[in-house]
Amino acid sequence: MVVSLKDIAERAGVSLATVSNVVNGYRPVGEATRLKVQEAIDELGYSPNLSARHLRSGRTGIVVLAIPELNNPYFAELAGAAIREAAGLGYTLVMEDTAGDRDKELMLAMGSRRQVMDGLIFSPVSITREEVLARSVSTPLVLIGEGVYDVPHDHIAIDNIAASHAAVQHLVSLDRHRIAFIGSQPGDLRQSAHLRFLGYRRALGAAGLPFEDALVVSTALFGRMDGLRAMRHLLDLPEPPDAVFAYNDLIAIGAMRAIGEAGRRIPDDIAVIGIDDIEEGRFSTPTLTTVAPDKEYIGRLAVQALVARIEGKPVSPPYDVQPPFRLITRESTLGGPRPVR
Amino acid sequence: MVVSLKDIAERAGVSLATVSNVVNGYRPVGEATRLKVQEAIDELGYSPNLSARHLRSGRTGIVVLAIPELNNPYFAELAGAAIREAAGLGYTLVMEDTAGDRDKELMLAMGSRRQVMDGLIFSPVSITREEVLARSVSTPLVLIGEGVYDVPHDHIAIDNIAASHAAVQHLVSLDRHRIAFIGSQPGDLRQSAHLRFLGYRRALGAAGLPFEDALVVSTALFGRMDGLRAMRHLLDLPEPPDAVFAYNDLIAIGAMRAIGEAGRRIPDDIAVIGIDDIEEGRFSTPTLTTVAPDKEYIGRLAVQALVARIEGKPVSPPYDVQPPFRLITRESTLGGPRPVR
Repeated sequence: MVVSLKDIAERAGVSLATVSNVVNGYRPVGEATRLKVQEAIDELGYSPNLSARHLRSGRTGIVVLAIPELNNPYFAELAGAAIREAAGLGYTLVMEDTAGDRDKELMLAMGSRRQVMDGLIFSPVSITREEVLARSVSTPLVLIGEGVYDVPHDHIAIDNIAASHAAVQHLVSLDRHRIAFIGSQPGDLRQSAHLRFLGYRRALGAAGLPFEDALVVSTALFGRMDGLRAMRHLLDLPEPPDAVFAYNDLIAIGAMRAIGEAGRRIPDDIAVIGIDDIEEGRFSTPTLTTVAPDKEYIGRLAVQALVARIEGKPVSPPYDVQPPFRLITRESTLGGPRPVR
Repeated sequence: MVVSLKDIAERAGVSLATVSNVVNGYRPVGEATRLKVQEAIDELGYSPNLSARHLRSGRTGIVVLAIPELNNPYFAELAGAAIREAAGLGYTLVMEDTAGDRDKELMLAMGSRRQVMDGLIFSPVSITREEVLARSVSTPLVLIGEGVYDVPHDHIAIDNIAASHAAVQHLVSLDRHRIAFIGSQPGDLRQSAHLRFLGYRRALGAAGLPFEDALVVSTALFGRMDGLRAMRHLLDLPEPPDAVFAYNDLIAIGAMRAIGEAGRRIPDDIAVIGIDDIEEGRFSTPTLTTVAPDKEYIGRLAVQALVARIEGKPVSPPYDVQPPFRLITRESTLGGPRPVR
């Protein structure tokens, strides 16, 4: 049984506010009352809140997870694992949305929030490697995602080329020959959109399929509406694709909507695959085949690495981890119905 | 043009780290260098970071938005508006997920994070009115959602009875007679699940439709899987419903999946409506009819109210605001196809 402050208040016969004052040290409490509360704490086996311990050590007990797209469920799902792991280690994890804004990312990287946090897990998309290298504060930093490489910080990101290769290979195995890619992005060659494009291109080559410029559509952002618009464009081609590999699940879901609106069947006419395994794709009609990064693993490992650095545990040099991923096949490539379990 | 630290570094001919040290006061910087940076700041019209100003005033510049369900896109969408409003007022908004955990909620309400934040926007679901009243810290608090009423804090929550009344009325207007409700919750009569149940029941009464216990299904939580399971149960009834009013959009989306799997047509056999207007329902097949609370308004107003209290502006006594909502009709009640625009 988890003992709550309320249990203690009842046992000690005092108010909740009094218990809170004793436990957290907010306000002075008379000695007799303090003893009563302490007795109740001892009897009930309450493990006192960690914030007092953190304060003594000069820490806040807060770690920040800074992400570029709050509206992408991928990050909320990853955060869930990170929040649980942080709680288990005695930290509170809060989320900050940078919206990919360069100045916001720069301020965070430079340590603008260091007085309120013990460490930062950061998925940057707009700042450069040089800017991260210019960082002068010592607040621990763990990078996730594909924004910045080759910096002296722990870094966790899936092998994007291998993941997209697996996605396209699955479409090839279903005998699809005109496979489109939605979500290409001009710009930084180290960004995940480009890496996924590379994996797509290599998988086509490995399958002996020709590469066609017309089947690659870039998008402004990575949302459902981007996927819908890109797919409408592909459906208007003289020879539309018979399969679509989307940069992520949100784009794939927008593409599926466009295919349905055009009266085409999924997967009979056009098969669809994404990346991320967001819960939405497990309940959509049709359900969405996807490549699933191990979000649980990424969230847990990022927090473990960060807390190890915060607490000065002996840790090896910064490491670069590629978390596992797996193909999850569903109705959007295999057909259905396949009831949700 | 927004002037960035990098622009300043280039103009001053110094490193980014140096600019950061000058602007944020992290480390001492030589006077000549400091002057060069200051000149560049003045020339470029950079408005210095607010954190220094906050620190001088004894503030952190951080406000926390504490929510009970990180995985519900409703909160991410609401947070988007709140984050933008906070940024405009010079604050950074971070999100904390309580997962509805009683002790987490209690600690937050009691002020456990007050040393790192200037104020709290809080959507509690497990703590009671008495526990909020027992609060002894003075950190400003704004409540959103339907957890706690009649406390001396600003409170923003839609009129749940009116919102669910509107949803059911829409189904009635489509000549549905066996209207189910998914998402009932035993327990606190002031919680939104109960209020929405009341609105459902009143709308049935107003339409002269009988109330049937068998058409009300309670759920453990408020997610897609809860909706799927509840709907499977309703489909197994001797006389299944011809319409479903779901507590929220996630439950409605799970219900739609179950209806499709059972080979029934939406809305021909069973019409579906939710509450929240999450983006997922604008792209699902079929698209989801819903009652949309004005999330933009709620997010903005919550931040404005909080910042007014933080900065000690003359504000009236705590107010209770019921933000507007509107019915958005889509394919799940009107049929389709109705292309996404």
